Parts: sequence; structure tokens; C-alpha cells
Amino acid sequence: MDVALIGLGKMGLGIAENLSQKEGYQLSGMDLNQKVKSEFEKQHGAFYSNVDALFSEKKSRRIVWIMLPAGETTNNMIKACCEKLVMGDIIIDAGNSKYLDSKLNFDYCQTQGIHFLDVGTSGGMEGARNGACMMVGGEELIFKELEGLFADLCVENGYLYCGSAGSGHYLKMVHNGIEYGIMQSIGEGFNVLYHSPYDYQLGEVAKVFNHGSVIRSWLMELTENLFKETADFSAIAGVIPSSGEGKWTVEEALRLNLAIPVITQSLMTRYSSSDNEKINEKVIALLRNQFGGHAFVKEE
Amino acid sequence: MDVALIGLGKMGLGIAENLSQKEGYQLSGMDLNQKVKSEFEKQHGAFYSNVDALFSEKKSRRIVWIMLPAGETTNNMIKACCEKLVMGDIIIDAGNSKYLDSKLNFDYCQTQGIHFLDVGTSGGMEGARNGACMMVGGEELIFKELEGLFADLCVENGYLYCGSAGSGHYLKMVHNGIEYGIMQSIGEGFNVLYHSPYDYQLGEVAKVFNHGSVIRSWLMELTENLFKETADFSAIAGVIPSSGEGKWTVEEALRLNLAIPVITQSLMTRYSSSDNEKINEKVIALLRNQFGGHAFVKEE
Repeated sequence: MDVALIGLGKMGLGIAENLSQKEGYQLSGMDLNQKVKSEFEKQHGAFYSNVDALFSEKKSRRIVWIMLPAGETTNNMIKACCEKLVMGDIIIDAGNSKYLDSKLNFDYCQTQGIHFLDVGTSGGMEGARNGACMMVGGEELIFKELEGLFADLCVENGYLYCGSAGSGHYLKMVHNGIEYGIMQSIGEGFNVLYHSPYDYQLGEVAKVFNHGSVIRSWLMELTENLFKETADFSAIAGVIPSSGEGKWTVEEALRLNLAIPVITQSLMTRYSSSDNEKINEKVIALLRNQFGGHAFVKEE
Repeated sequence: MDVALIGLGKMGLGIAENLSQKEGYQLSGMDLNQKVKSEFEKQHGAFYSNVDALFSEKKSRRIVWIMLPAGETTNNMIKACCEKLVMGDIIIDAGNSKYLDSKLNFDYCQTQGIHFLDVGTSGGMEGARNGACMMVGGEELIFKELEGLFADLCVENGYLYCGSAGSGHYLKMVHNGIEYGIMQSIGEGFNVLYHSPYDYQLGEVAKVFNHGSVIRSWLMELTENLFKETADFSAIAGVIPSSGEGKWTVEEALRLNLAIPVITQSLMTRYSSSDNEKINEKVIALLRNQFGGHAFVKEE
């Protein structure tokens, strides 16, 4: 199977490493970043720095695996690929695209005679390398044709055909919404423990939580690691970036008129965490001052 | 080791079953409910229906393992046991007591010359039977003396000595607070999926989440089971009881002036779920009516 990997970041390179250890794949790769060239070529196959070059050689059926930042970058790349591919070729968007984009990308590919699958990928970098979890949307026949590829990339039972176009990325979106809530729950609990009247060893706490407790989980294993590896919390800024899926989950709940207060709050906590202006807090502090003469804290 | 089990409910009987399969324990049991008598006697040891009878026989050092509903029931039982025990005996409260109660119970036992450990137990009924997770507070020397007992009852690495009196139940309290948040996150995510434009098989979704994804966890495994076992959601009332630990976690955060919005919201969702009066909602609906003439829904 001829697989062209577009986007050789942490996830894309992990997929390359994963596939290069399996039988029956011929890999080529493309990235704008020339720095990954040597790493890719050494182990995995021919490297190209643009789409024209990547597709210059004639191949029988092409499988194009895209792992790029969601949005314009991915959407434009899919269109650029369509120009070079021939009828019956398959594009797989395995990045974190918004499901509405994936529906549009599916429709566009259809007009070009190209098959398109949207694949939500979970499991992080380790998963990409050693066995991921994948949620697949698009034509079922195309999924079935490529089922061996998903079986090779995922842990056992680690892939699911979810339904029509967009359903893979939709499921990954909600997966990440749940993930936001779980991470926030863990963060809040450890905040209480940190400030508790007892002298808990937080790494040991996470470890015992992972052995027989109701909340044992992979995220709790990562929590165990972080307390092992990060001795100095004062060196870490309390800022949590977010890359879209949590926001889209909240947008989708609003569209459906559904209450998801905890996932919403988890997203809002992330926004608060990087809000250095703190206008909200300043307004409230000044209101307290207005009606009650309560002192407010001046910036140092 | 002579272990007297007080409280032979689902958890207590599980502990009995667990210990009776290990070497070196002589068990006796006590419960007010005579129905558990035959089950306990058949497999585990002598059954008594009151404290006087339980402690009528002289034994060398007694270990008393209490698993009763938290609050008065447990606190009174600890006092009742102290009257019958002799200096150096050990009481273990392995129920879900409030840590402040456990500190008081520790102090009381000290005045009676009785040792006291507070043990938070996680892992559910299956854990009690086959290997639990236990968080132990109290005198470290007494913990060390009984470490073999905890090793026998728990999964490997499944117990932790946490510190002074109350620290075991404090940790269990926060564990359950985290659990509330994780469960709420899962509930919200599956609510979105249930109402999504796609036709997800939710049991299959939970299953794939458990194979390689970031949110794989024991609670997600239970989610997988529930969609297998509960075909008819319309037969289930959307009411979530709570037994204390979530509330105490929020109380503790208030005491410490810490923001734990998601754990708090998870608790509030439970309260809302059993609020049939809906005064809050009615007030808001009528306010909308007052200022905007918006229709409100009349009770059928």
C-alpha cells in the first residue's frame, strides 16, 4: 500500500514510525519544514517539500494521510491534493479538524472523484508511534478497504467506523470535550490536596489512585508522571492552551440546546488561565468598591 | 490475625470474602441485619448481631474493621466498641466517614487507649472482593503493624499511608470529588453524542475510547458496560443520589478559599437531578414573563 504522509510533526512522524515497522507499506512524506527531512528519509522513505514533487511519480491507487493543523492549512491542503490525485484515490484527514470542515471537505472531494475519510486520532504521540485510537467517518466501503491500515496503526479494538462524513471528527471533538472535563476534575482535586492540612506526596497519591481505585485512568497515570518529573511547580506558568475541540464541543451543545456545564467550565477555565488583562475581575472589584467601599488591590 | 468485621453490607461482605481466601485470618462478623447471618457463617466465621456478643469471647489483640454508613452510625459504633475493647486493640474505620469525624474518633479512641486508623476504600464491590485501593490515616506504627492486612486486601501498590489521623478519609473525599467531575464529564459527552446528527452506537463508542484513547479509564469501562446492559434508558430516572464526599470536597474548598468549579457543578447537577419542585426554574420563567411577556409552561 502506497501511503503519502503530509504533515510530519510529532503525530505525523509517529504514524510514519508506526507504519514503517509494519509489513506492506511504501511511505513517502511531505512537510514544509526541511528539518524533518533527514529524520524521515533515514527511516521511512522519500521526503518531498511540496505537493507537486510528492505526487510527481505515477502510482497506482494513492492513499494520502494528512496530519496538519486544523482549519485553513488542512482544508487548503486537501484541495491542493485533489488537483494532483486521480479518480479513486483516497485522502484521509487524521488531524483534529472541525467536523463541519470535514463534511465540506468530503463534499469537495466527491466532486473531484476522490474518496475522503475523516479520522479522529487519540492516544497522543505515544499512541501514534505504538498504537493509537481512531474514529473513522466517511464511506463505509472505503473504510472496509482500508481496515487493515487502521488495524495496523491502532491498538487492538482501537478503531471504530462511526458513520457518514464528519462522524469521526465529531466523535473526536466530544472525546476531547470529555478529556477537558476529566483533566479539570483532576486539576481541581489535586489543588485541594496541595492546600490540604495534610502533607500528601502527590505523585504517590496519583499512583495509589491508579491501583484499584474508581478513578484509575491513563490521565491519572500521566498525573503520576508529572509529579515525578516536575519537581518545581513554580517554574510552570498556570496557563492552559486549547486547540479547538473543547470549544467546538461547547458550540455543538449550544446548537443542540444541551447543558454541558462541566465541559463548558473546563473550557472557560482555560480561557481564564491565559487572560492577563483580568477585566472581569477588575470590574467586580471596582463594583464592590462602589457600593460597599471595599478596598481593591492595586497593581504593583 | 483476629479480625472482627462490623457492617456486613455489600462492601463489608466483600472484605470478608477477600480475607477468607487469604492465609492467617480468623474472622467474626456483626450486623444488625440477620439476613446476612447465613451467608457470613457459611463461608467466613461466627456471626453476631450485637457488639456485646461479638466481643464476649476474650481474644488477644483485636482488630475491628468497621464498614458502616458514615456519620452517627459509625461514630456511635466506634464509641460502643471502645467500651468493649482493651488497651492496644485497633479499630479501623474503612467506611466513607467525613475526615473531621475521623479526627474526632481518633482523639476519642486515644483517650480510651485504643488505636484508630481511618481508611478510605475505593474500587467498589468488586474491589472489596478481589483487590481494593486503600488510603490510610493514623499512627504510622500501627499502619506498619497492619501493613500485611492492607497488602492482602488491596491490588498490588493499592494502598498508601497518607499521614496523621483523618488523612485517609480526606484523600478518599477528594478522590470522590474527582470521581464526581469525571462522571459528569462522561455524562455530558455522551449526552452530546446521543443528540448528535450521527447514529453512534454508544457502547461501541465507549469501547473504542477504552482502547488507546487519552480518556481510557475504569469509569469508561463501566460506561461501556452500562450501554451493553441497559437497553431501555426510558426506564431509568435521571436522578443521581450522592452520599457525602462530593459535598465535603466542596465544603473543604470553601474552607480553603479554593475554586473547584467543575467538582462543585458536578455536585449541583446531582442536587438539580432530584429537585422535583424546580422553584429556581419557576422563578426564572416567571421573571421572563414579568419583564418580557414571555410565555411560561404550565404544569399538565
